[in-house]
Amino acid sequence: MYPFSVDRNYVRDSWYVAALSSEVSDNPVDRRILGDLVLLYRDSNGDPVALSGLCPHRRLPLRLGKRVGDNVQCGYHGITFDTGGNCVSVPTQEKPSERLSLHKYPVAERWKWIWIWTGDPADADPNLIPDHREMGLEGDWEATPPEYYHVAARSQMLIENLLDLSHISFLHGDYIEDAAWYETPVTIERDGDRCVASRHTPSSRSSDFHRWMFPDAPDLVGQDLRTVFLGPALTYSGPVVREAAANGSNGRYLGTMYAAHAITPETPRSSHYFSTTTRDFRTDDAAMSEELHTMDIAVRNQDLVALAAIEAELHREDSLPPEVSVKADNPALYVRRMIEDRLRAQPA
Amino acid sequence: MYPFSVDRNYVRDSWYVAALSSEVSDNPVDRRILGDLVLLYRDSNGDPVALSGLCPHRRLPLRLGKRVGDNVQCGYHGITFDTGGNCVSVPTQEKPSERLSLHKYPVAERWKWIWIWTGDPADADPNLIPDHREMGLEGDWEATPPEYYHVAARSQMLIENLLDLSHISFLHGDYIEDAAWYETPVTIERDGDRCVASRHTPSSRSSDFHRWMFPDAPDLVGQDLRTVFLGPALTYSGPVVREAAANGSNGRYLGTMYAAHAITPETPRSSHYFSTTTRDFRTDDAAMSEELHTMDIAVRNQDLVALAAIEAELHREDSLPPEVSVKADNPALYVRRMIEDRLRAQPA
Amino acid sequence: MYPFSVDRNYVRDSWYVAALSSEVSDNPVDRRILGDLVLLYRDSNGDPVALSGLCPHRRLPLRLGKRVGDNVQCGYHGITFDTGGNCVSVPTQEKPSERLSLHKYPVAERWKWIWIWTGDPADADPNLIPDHREMGLEGDWEATPPEYYHVAARSQMLIENLLDLSHISFLHGDYIEDAAWYETPVTIERDGDRCVASRHTPSSRSSDFHRWMFPDAPDLVGQDLRTVFLGPALTYSGPVVREAAANGSNGRYLGTMYAAHAITPETPRSSHYFSTTTRDFRTDDAAMSEELHTMDIAVRNQDLVALAAIEAELHREDSLPPEVSVKADNPALYVRRMIEDRLRAQPA
Ligand code: FES
Ligand code: FES
Ligand code: FES
Repeated sequence: MYPFSVDRNYVRDSWYVAALSSEVSDNPVDRRILGDLVLLYRDSNGDPVALSGLCPHRRLPLRLGKRVGDNVQCGYHGITFDTGGNCVSVPTQEKPSERLSLHKYPVAERWKWIWIWTGDPADADPNLIPDHREMGLEGDWEATPPEYYHVAARSQMLIENLLDLSHISFLHGDYIEDAAWYETPVTIERDGDRCVASRHTPSSRSSDFHRWMFPDAPDLVGQDLRTVFLGPALTYSGPVVREAAANGSNGRYLGTMYAAHAITPETPRSSHYFSTTTRDFRTDDAAMSEELHTMDIAVRNQDLVALAAIEAELHREDSLPPEVSVKADNPALYVRRMIEDRLRAQPA
Repeated sequence: MYPFSVDRNYVRDSWYVAALSSEVSDNPVDRRILGDLVLLYRDSNGDPVALSGLCPHRRLPLRLGKRVGDNVQCGYHGITFDTGGNCVSVPTQEKPSERLSLHKYPVAERWKWIWIWTGDPADADPNLIPDHREMGLEGDWEATPPEYYHVAARSQMLIENLLDLSHISFLHGDYIEDAAWYETPVTIERDGDRCVASRHTPSSRSSDFHRWMFPDAPDLVGQDLRTVFLGPALTYSGPVVREAAANGSNGRYLGTMYAAHAITPETPRSSHYFSTTTRDFRTDDAAMSEELHTMDIAVRNQDLVALAAIEAELHREDSLPPEVSVKADNPALYVRRMIEDRLRAQPA
Repeated sequence: MYPFSVDRNYVRDSWYVAALSSEVSDNPVDRRILGDLVLLYRDSNGDPVALSGLCPHRRLPLRLGKRVGDNVQCGYHGITFDTGGNCVSVPTQEKPSERLSLHKYPVAERWKWIWIWTGDPADADPNLIPDHREMGLEGDWEATPPEYYHVAARSQMLIENLLDLSHISFLHGDYIEDAAWYETPVTIERDGDRCVASRHTPSSRSSDFHRWMFPDAPDLVGQDLRTVFLGPALTYSGPVVREAAANGSNGRYLGTMYAAHAITPETPRSSHYFSTTTRDFRTDDAAMSEELHTMDIAVRNQDLVALAAIEAELHREDSLPPEVSVKADNPALYVRRMIEDRLRAQPA
């Protein structure tokens, strides 16, 4: 399926954000993740639990069941499962059946997100969850409230959107316009499973957006507009801003603003999108935080509208004009190949 | 298609309930039955007529036509058919055409239901319609008003729902809870095309539901919880209640309550469901009838919600975890095989 | 696909009406035509422009872009195209890319309609657009305002609807009933790519509709009820009315009323329908024009309801009863073969 030439939809060996921490409570809810229903709730210690969301008996979605202590009782014939996914009771017989069990997803709560591992649980190494501090979370940066968006488009389009930030001045031009953000050539650097696309501009006129971020911004700024791809589940992006370089040395550091984008496939044609924006400057400025949050939501919705409009056309992929790429697509195409390699390496 | 391994959707050689008597009047309406549109109306004698619902000319649904005497005139080019489905007039030519005719479905009105035969009309023996009296209809039992439900699930799931009444205490636990109804082992008895699943409990504590049915119910009751499968079109189920057996003899008979469930496939993934609840005790108690009717509707809707939630997942059958059965599923699995045998025996 | 036995959906070598003139303005909009999104707007001279509606870069629908002078800038990464469909700017690089270009559809504005050519632009001969005067447009006849209808049915059904006007007295019997319009045998005459079906009635009782058209209509009229098929994109139809013939000579000419029907496939199962009704009598009678316009809309909607009801059944074409034709279907079947021949002749 576009944009891949391999017939697999999801990278399974990965941690993904399943939900905002605030979405998961004592009361089981479910969400479709990588095609499967996942039941999410918290046990009596407050720890998140993620289990297959379909009863293996007659496949009632367990969201229609009820919590019994820390266990979940199916709403159809009352078969009950513990937080490990083990069947602990079958009402019509004395003993539970071992054949009835739910897949238990490894989970981990980081910052305000609940991560799950969608591959073989034996491979679920929490150290594979990206360090949140590098994008300004779990440290002393300031972050906007975490938001959840449902996206009516395949996850790969969302990833590639982030790897070509030249779109900002056009799709989000109401909020941010900066010619340096598209005119400066983009470079790619790979480091293992991560990949950094950046536009380094030693000196350019500061934009309205810069002056909004840094009211004392000089006329000329130096910037590094970065997108850091950390795998199919997480990418962050944003500008590192300084005063323009002068006399061969870097100018004064002004600050960094990153948007963290956690992307989780829902179905082959839709996604979950969790995002927040962080900054290391004016961290106590509540008014700025609020304006930023409002802008975040507006900007994300512009992405959603555009990607859904493209997705709506992809249903007739066979009769579409072929996609034509330009130089600025190199980072996106690079990451596309990285993910395609992982899809190809997966057992069918 | 689940749960069958044969590629046929419907048992055709059967009578099915097409509609409530009250749904069919002078004014032709249609309903999709076993995949086909069926036009339903009453002739001037008040007798029900069931014809193929599509004009054979350019296939306009005949519900958009109009009644002319006892005939039906197509709303597009005016071709007219009599109650036998014969073409009696083609406006653009002097003579009607024999090649234009509608399939006429044999029909029979029993109790407050209109039955149709969906197989070869030559095989339509009215004696194959189940005797309604054995489930408390057309005799001196009391019955709640007949209700119609549209079910967004394949008919077989509705049939199997009824063959495992252990679900009652869980799915309908707001209304009926009785441990005897799931703890007692179920037995199956086959007699030709019919099959009876029953849970016989010589003595158990009477439940709130028993005390509601029989205000003078003793502390211990003996019950026989029965599901009688009469073919793909009709199943009835309910408890036969006595005082608990004592001294080796049966206790005093208290009464029987049956729910009759007429189930008619609409499409491979949806069904029509006609039901009523009958009883042979407190037959004059109008207040009880009304409470029972209210509860009926609530309980049926719980079934509808559960089955539709399962059906919604079956669209992606290939990627679902397999169904796992327990001992209590034996009657359902038995009936599943009976129906699969009938499907397999049908011409392709 | 029904009613063709060839696996091609659209006759591509044709002019089709894309839009009403009034629908196309400075502000680009799109419409799906023969399966493809087409962007429509007017340049600064007011001339209509029709371009492929998807950006070739990442295939954002260009309706989400914006007009920059006479050019269109894509709303995603700002790539810009001129009215010829040529890429004139790629923001991330100095030079535009020749590989990025939009299909430019030849267009022509006639009467109040914008026509586009959906085949190879090299073959777009404006002389192939039917002469509008023969159906009473672009001359001194009077025409009702042009209307647009979306039809939830394949275009061929709309064409065939017009080639069997016997449907008028039945589907539109609320407005027009005239036995001569179905009882008179229909004849077909082919002349190159056009085909005329007509019912010539030397003398028949004038109908309510005749008397509404011609308040002084005599009791007996002679009429020629014609459908002129000019290709898959355009058909017109209506009665030519005289006083009844007497003494072997034609009676006095009363007038002609034609409905022009421009039909454009949207998808294999839906269509665009542009229509107007013309007349060469009482051309100054504004009250009559208004009544006719009101009736037009009502009559078209009756067609829409009927055709959509048929289309809804065709989704399960395999299990439908076969279509049965009568003599009056000859013109429709004749035209069906003409179109099928054109489909078959097209490169796959
Ligand atoms: S479907 Fe869950 S217990 Fe039966
Ligand atoms: S479709 Fe019924 S008469 Fe033509
Ligand atoms: S999709 Fe149009 S410029 Fe990228």
